[in-house]
Amino acid sequence: MVDVRENESIDDLILGGLKIIQKTGGFRFSLDAILLAHFATVKKGYRIIDLGTGTGIIPLILTTRAHELDITGVEIQEEAAQMAKRSLALNQLLDIKIINADLRKLGEEHWGHYDLVISNPPYLTLNQGKISPSEEIALSRHEIKCSLEDLIRSGEKLVKNRGKFALIHRAERLAEIIAHLNTYKLEPKRIRLIHPYLAESANLLLVEAIKGGKPGLTVHTPLVVYNADGTYTKEILNYYYGGETCDS
Amino acid sequence: MVDVRENESIDDLILGGLKIIQKTGGFRFSLDAILLAHFATVKKGYRIIDLGTGTGIIPLILTTRAHELDITGVEIQEEAAQMAKRSLALNQLLDIKIINADLRKLGEEHWGHYDLVISNPPYLTLNQGKISPSEEIALSRHEIKCSLEDLIRSGEKLVKNRGKFALIHRAERLAEIIAHLNTYKLEPKRIRLIHPYLAESANLLLVEAIKGGKPGLTVHTPLVVYNADGTYTKEILNYYYGGETCDS
Repeated sequence: MVDVRENESIDDLILGGLKIIQKTGGFRFSLDAILLAHFATVKKGYRIIDLGTGTGIIPLILTTRAHELDITGVEIQEEAAQMAKRSLALNQLLDIKIINADLRKLGEEHWGHYDLVISNPPYLTLNQGKISPSEEIALSRHEIKCSLEDLIRSGEKLVKNRGKFALIHRAERLAEIIAHLNTYKLEPKRIRLIHPYLAESANLLLVEAIKGGKPGLTVHTPLVVYNADGTYTKEILNYYYGGETCDS
Repeated sequence: MVDVRENESIDDLILGGLKIIQKTGGFRFSLDAILLAHFATVKKGYRIIDLGTGTGIIPLILTTRAHELDITGVEIQEEAAQMAKRSLALNQLLDIKIINADLRKLGEEHWGHYDLVISNPPYLTLNQGKISPSEEIALSRHEIKCSLEDLIRSGEKLVKNRGKFALIHRAERLAEIIAHLNTYKLEPKRIRLIHPYLAESANLLLVEAIKGGKPGLTVHTPLVVYNADGTYTKEILNYYYGGETCDS
């Protein structure tokens, strides 16, 4: 029996029959995490670390992408980390490790250890927008514990040489993201812009860099979320209902 | 009477009834120049300089974007510069100045002088692809006389504070372009990816930076060149046949 508490719900991810425990009034996973988990390059046997895993949505989805993955999620908030652990138990995915820690302070045993570092970080600097009075929501939205540069610096430290670092972020911060990646010798190799509608500017950006990679990148097809009539596009529906998406 | 020589043709740009003189066997303007000339921010009265103007296609199109523009084109190849001058005469646009010079060596009277610096430069480094035996074609395709960094350094010198620098380039060089813009305090503010087909990766990139601008950019809707059936999209047809497109 998995412990589900008052003010929590078990939500069905549909994909692969996965379920996740979330607070009904707290931070809940978004489509963004799903898009990132499907964008990153994931191959059989990869060692992966998800920085700021929240309730563990990205590790859960990654299990559908390839076999024999060794996945770790890092979450600074104890309550979210506990919920992530209970969600993994609910899905009988107990080989995924959840570490309740500050991602900037992971020990040497993690350095240069991962094939893929993945993160759906807070999108807003401390100067952007109102900071939520809920600490839980504030930490997930604003760069309170970890700036974009902190995240990229930490990613570089954790990923092995030629390993990958995949990120989702606001499209408006594209130049800043590339400048930081450049500073830490993480070469952007794949970019995908996310547009709510095809006729609208991009609001989000998916980027994957390779540590020590050669210059030159691919800008993939635009990822469009809604059809003109407001329904989800085929691609998005496929992420929710597409069943098995193992690449290897 | 405008002098049109052997091995040259007068080509109709349709847009605004403009005509351009080009060599039948030499470098000819491409769709890229047209896309850039329509992407850049152009307002009434702007002082504009086109770096590497070739046969003057960008200045010609810019005249349809706004009134009272003060346009200069710089071209290192004497023959192309002469053709640009003759094309301008043919169109009775003699107030557009063509300078036959190395864009890296423009005198102090040009520094900090322009509201908009615009360029459709050679796309290839000296390590990419075969260099054409035709000097004229080689200079237009490969960074023989001017590297990407040279171009961005020169752009920064020529544009006034808060002025704009607009560029078209290969999408695969996005990260490199942003890194150089960052070095020269040109803040990318608008980006548009060009996809040959909607279902294909981007091959080209339009970017506009502001000298001394604040961080934060817009990634516009994708610009798609062909419909699935291989015909031009409405947007492209509009650039050729749209008639007046004056913004102001």
